Amino acid sequence: MLVVMSRRATEEDIKRVAEFLEAKGFKALVSHGKARTVVHGIGVIEVDQRDFELLDNVEEVIRLTSNYKLAARESQGEDTIIEVNGVKFGGKYTGLIAGPCTIESYEQMDKTAQQLEESNVKILRGGAFKPRTSPYAFQGLGEEGLKIIRSVADNHKMAVTSEIMEVGQIEMFEKYVDIMQVGARNMQNFNLLKELGHVNKPVILKRGLSSTYEELLMSAEYIMSGGNNQVILCERGIRTFEKYTRNTLDLTAIPVIKKLSHLPIIVDPSHATGLRDKVEPMSRAAVAAGCDGLIIEVHYEPDCAVCDGAQSLYPWQYNELYKEIKQIAPIVGKEIL
Amino acid sequence: MLVVMSRRATEEDIKRVAEFLEAKGFKALVSHGKARTVVHGIGVIEVDQRDFELLDNVEEVIRLTSNYKLAARESQGEDTIIEVNGVKFGGKYTGLIAGPCTIESYEQMDKTAQQLEESNVKILRGGAFKPRTSPYAFQGLGEEGLKIIRSVADNHKMAVTSEIMEVGQIEMFEKYVDIMQVGARNMQNFNLLKELGHVNKPVILKRGLSSTYEELLMSAEYIMSGGNNQVILCERGIRTFEKYTRNTLDLTAIPVIKKLSHLPIIVDPSHATGLRDKVEPMSRAAVAAGCDGLIIEVHYEPDCAVCDGAQSLYPWQYNELYKEIKQIAPIVGKEIL
Amino acid sequence: MLVVMSRRATEEDIKRVAEFLEAKGFKALVSHGKARTVVHGIGVIEVDQRDFELLDNVEEVIRLTSNYKLAARESQGEDTIIEVNGVKFGGKYTGLIAGPCTIESYEQMDKTAQQLEESNVKILRGGAFKPRTSPYAFQGLGEEGLKIIRSVADNHKMAVTSEIMEVGQIEMFEKYVDIMQVGARNMQNFNLLKELGHVNKPVILKRGLSSTYEELLMSAEYIMSGGNNQVILCERGIRTFEKYTRNTLDLTAIPVIKKLSHLPIIVDPSHATGLRDKVEPMSRAAVAAGCDGLIIEVHYEPDCAVCDGAQSLYPWQYNELYKEIKQIAPIVGKEIL
Amino acid sequence: MLVVMSRRATEEDIKRVAEFLEAKGFKALVSHGKARTVVHGIGVIEVDQRDFELLDNVEEVIRLTSNYKLAARESQGEDTIIEVNGVKFGGKYTGLIAGPCTIESYEQMDKTAQQLEESNVKILRGGAFKPRTSPYAFQGLGEEGLKIIRSVADNHKMAVTSEIMEVGQIEMFEKYVDIMQVGARNMQNFNLLKELGHVNKPVILKRGLSSTYEELLMSAEYIMSGGNNQVILCERGIRTFEKYTRNTLDLTAIPVIKKLSHLPIIVDPSHATGLRDKVEPMSRAAVAAGCDGLIIEVHYEPDCAVCDGAQSLYPWQYNELYKEIKQIAPIVGKEIL
Repeated sequence: MLVVMSRRATEEDIKRVAEFLEAKGFKALVSHGKARTVVHGIGVIEVDQRDFELLDNVEEVIRLTSNYKLAARESQGEDTIIEVNGVKFGGKYTGLIAGPCTIESYEQMDKTAQQLEESNVKILRGGAFKPRTSPYAFQGLGEEGLKIIRSVADNHKMAVTSEIMEVGQIEMFEKYVDIMQVGARNMQNFNLLKELGHVNKPVILKRGLSSTYEELLMSAEYIMSGGNNQVILCERGIRTFEKYTRNTLDLTAIPVIKKLSHLPIIVDPSHATGLRDKVEPMSRAAVAAGCDGLIIEVHYEPDCAVCDGAQSLYPWQYNELYKEIKQIAPIVGKEIL
Repeated sequence: MLVVMSRRATEEDIKRVAEFLEAKGFKALVSHGKARTVVHGIGVIEVDQRDFELLDNVEEVIRLTSNYKLAARESQGEDTIIEVNGVKFGGKYTGLIAGPCTIESYEQMDKTAQQLEESNVKILRGGAFKPRTSPYAFQGLGEEGLKIIRSVADNHKMAVTSEIMEVGQIEMFEKYVDIMQVGARNMQNFNLLKELGHVNKPVILKRGLSSTYEELLMSAEYIMSGGNNQVILCERGIRTFEKYTRNTLDLTAIPVIKKLSHLPIIVDPSHATGLRDKVEPMSRAAVAAGCDGLIIEVHYEPDCAVCDGAQSLYPWQYNELYKEIKQIAPIVGKEIL
Repeated sequence: MLVVMSRRATEEDIKRVAEFLEAKGFKALVSHGKARTVVHGIGVIEVDQRDFELLDNVEEVIRLTSNYKLAARESQGEDTIIEVNGVKFGGKYTGLIAGPCTIESYEQMDKTAQQLEESNVKILRGGAFKPRTSPYAFQGLGEEGLKIIRSVADNHKMAVTSEIMEVGQIEMFEKYVDIMQVGARNMQNFNLLKELGHVNKPVILKRGLSSTYEELLMSAEYIMSGGNNQVILCERGIRTFEKYTRNTLDLTAIPVIKKLSHLPIIVDPSHATGLRDKVEPMSRAAVAAGCDGLIIEVHYEPDCAVCDGAQSLYPWQYNELYKEIKQIAPIVGKEIL
Repeated sequence: MLVVMSRRATEEDIKRVAEFLEAKGFKALVSHGKARTVVHGIGVIEVDQRDFELLDNVEEVIRLTSNYKLAARESQGEDTIIEVNGVKFGGKYTGLIAGPCTIESYEQMDKTAQQLEESNVKILRGGAFKPRTSPYAFQGLGEEGLKIIRSVADNHKMAVTSEIMEVGQIEMFEKYVDIMQVGARNMQNFNLLKELGHVNKPVILKRGLSSTYEELLMSAEYIMSGGNNQVILCERGIRTFEKYTRNTLDLTAIPVIKKLSHLPIIVDPSHATGLRDKVEPMSRAAVAAGCDGLIIEVHYEPDCAVCDGAQSLYPWQYNELYKEIKQIAPIVGKEIL
């Protein structure tokens, strides 16, 4: 058994691990490496490795090193806080983003934004390029859509986020958008990630439908290794055998990612559940679990939405939700604008 | 039952389906659509829909009825509320259960119970028969353990819940235990479920590692169809590709089950995450999502626990958590004792 | 990095591992334990651990020991061969079992057996106690069914296998059945496994819907540690996100299990796919992958089957399949009766 | 589209559904069953079925049409056969592709190709752009690599296939490559798929790690709707809870896809299993299940491979495998060159 100590481990921490190993019946050998110390437990004994993971300043048990470096909590003690238009993600802040799934028209965006303004929304979402499973489904308004959301957001003093789908769109997006969004299907579009590493705007990176926490962090590392440290991770549900909801929202990602990384992690309950009446309880749960933000679909008239209306909140529902999570946040040491 | 025919279906194909339905006891009605034809089988009869799928030019077969009846929300509008020792599960109540994974000794149970009493715990958990993956692992104290937990609980005016593993143990459990617990691995031990239908005590039924919501409700139906309506469902994590945590806690189960059924649903964050520092945020999240209760592992000295110490809270951690969730519950319209 | 050598490893094998580690940039330390030798690679280097797993007599990389012992290939070099009524499972033999899902009547069993006899079937399957998801579905004929299958099998000089569901049924099954079958839902019914360890008959142990290879072997270990070494493992599909078929048949289990264990592994393509027209190609594939046997559902008149008719072959289909797999087996070094 | 109403549905609920269907462009027909009512929406219109699920007292909504048309078996009775350099995929032909994971050097490609030539390989694979999880891992030789594989293939009279990662690379790939390969991570890179619809070369489309059969066919539809009908589907393992192998190879995909579509389906056992000694049995199994081709990693010296050596066959192993599958193919009515 190998117990890898954190860089901050004191000699006492190391001694405690060695003693714990010996108490369990191992022979303990401490090997001081250049980067860090590893305690080797020799012997063939039934133990629960998690017992060791929970000791002070133990970084990992058995596997030697994580493959991500810049994204790792180890490389930076304090939380990364990303601020856009006065909204903060990370640290003690829980930032909010809202808006329709798809940009349909100026009127639709403006009516929605107007109502969201009353709930204090400062960042507007809306898709102009839509990754649709079927080639026959509506594919989005394209650049025309980006122009609309930019103009509407400006009118309402909001910032803009929208999903980018390929390298060739970066220049266009830089003109209209404040936060680049990488969708779940592109989480491992490595060429796109590399190029976003050279962009001077925050990136929301959504977890792929079957991606592990480690893979999500490795994808963040692609962006960061290009020089862009403003990465906001986003849990939006994974694919499991359960088909009642669109995906299975994995809220445990929140405390896990916050332990492994200094990057903020937000939650998208709309895509995760795919059902409007599940968005509210899951949003509250995400805040109670300590998430750094939410991105929620809201449409001024969901029944007429071109796309994903079934998972969009009515503005009044968003407003109620907003009031609830504002109460929950301080209980878990967080603050919502 | 609906049998949707393919576009190529001939009149003969359709006739054959109709006759097959009638042979099974349905009344068959053919409805010719523009795109394709649907044969409607009227009646409530148990059949295997795949028998129909294999007929020529059948495109899809759709069951019209949910298979659970007594457990269905349809059969009972108001929430079932189950009360044990003054603790209520369901409706506006969120009940709490706490205690160690395994009963190790009188002293261990008593010390733990003493501390839990200060946090207002009224139902004590502890395993006497342990379903261990390995035959070489500690299998529990057996009936001796049940005697210990009963005696300790009595001293502290607590009720008792413990996991039952087979039909042959029912009589023994009736002597010592107030709530029977059926573990995830036994969720489809149908013989056990049937027998628990004749027991006059509440049953906590844990969701299997790869069981759907519908299967969980069908297993509840096994118990209820025997006459025992006091079933408490329990989400405790499902098995997915993500291996960082022991299982993936599926909190969306809460609003889904509450829509489909009138039975209370509680959450076991200890087994779901397998890591002590994830139990607290996930407990808060469960309450914020509207769960009807929590069952949490607490040990007076987790580092010395025989089993699953890594996921057990220290009593002081439980106490902190208790204070937090008491604040969250009223925000979502719930009440914690 | 820890490389655990097999007990059969020679000094040369160990040296090769050490040299390979050093070639990759590690410092290698050999630690001779009492039970076996571990080579410790010191250093923080990116390698693919599978490169090590493929070296001669390397047992495992990183994790120290497997938790199963009696079932492990290490504990027994040669394959276990289990023989019932002249049919052999394991080693170079591929044994066949066939029959209906459920025992419905004497006539149904007899007609089916008569036709299977012509295809050289020597072991008859048929369920008397059925684990049904719904309490309202047909639960089997019970002991009456066991009497029928025994009597029919005797008439056709066949052996009998049937599924046992709980400890209390063991005595009854010993009277009628030659091979005990443990279903997927009971793979971790540890009480049942323990008791089957004291039975003097072979046991078919089916893999649970979400059980890993290691857990399957651990369950076999439960039976073997009681003294019964006649365990036949059975792959029957796992639960995944893909819902077109009932389950996802995992044929890679065959070469994996054969490497990890000396026990025979057979395949149940009927339950895995749930669709008759998929049974034939998957049976052929299983044989080509080197399985030690097949258990296939056949009904003399599938359209009238009480249960799972949709996945049952017609006798003539079984006969065709039989001819095909008899040709495939010798290509992969196996023999079918 | 079928909207199944719940038992509690009032006449008003039903009317609302009918009107909603008509508002979306369908013709609505109400059919009153004994148990419940079904509203039939006639027409082929893209809608989100969840919009209907959220209406009052709607129990279930059923889509009547598959979303892929050009790829569907319905649209073309005979199998599509794709021929490249004399090798045929589809119909009664099983085509073979082999080569290393990554193009490392001219020498490596040439030595490998030389040996593969002796096993009658006519299509050479090799990656020049590698989608690596880590930004710090080798990313491939790029265009230089494509030049090498083209030149080596020409010397050995072979065709070339290599993985393309983004739209911007299409022009480059058209110069060097005979079959475009779309990796699992790009199966839903819709922009890339659309552009490949305008290319006059066959495309191998690999199934995503968590993609359903239907999604795979929808992605093929993206390519075909652009005018390119030469799509070869490829099963390469899905992500499940089982971690012993890299992925879980889903061979049932073969008979399922062949029923749903006329497109050829091949198998990549190297990426699916990630372990050399599993490639051979799984290749045999794939052929026995009736696959239309195999793509296998072979390296003249796997131990020195830059990438994925652990899953690459030695040339002599490939040769043995070749001989075995040539014997299996005719048993299942197929032919290997």
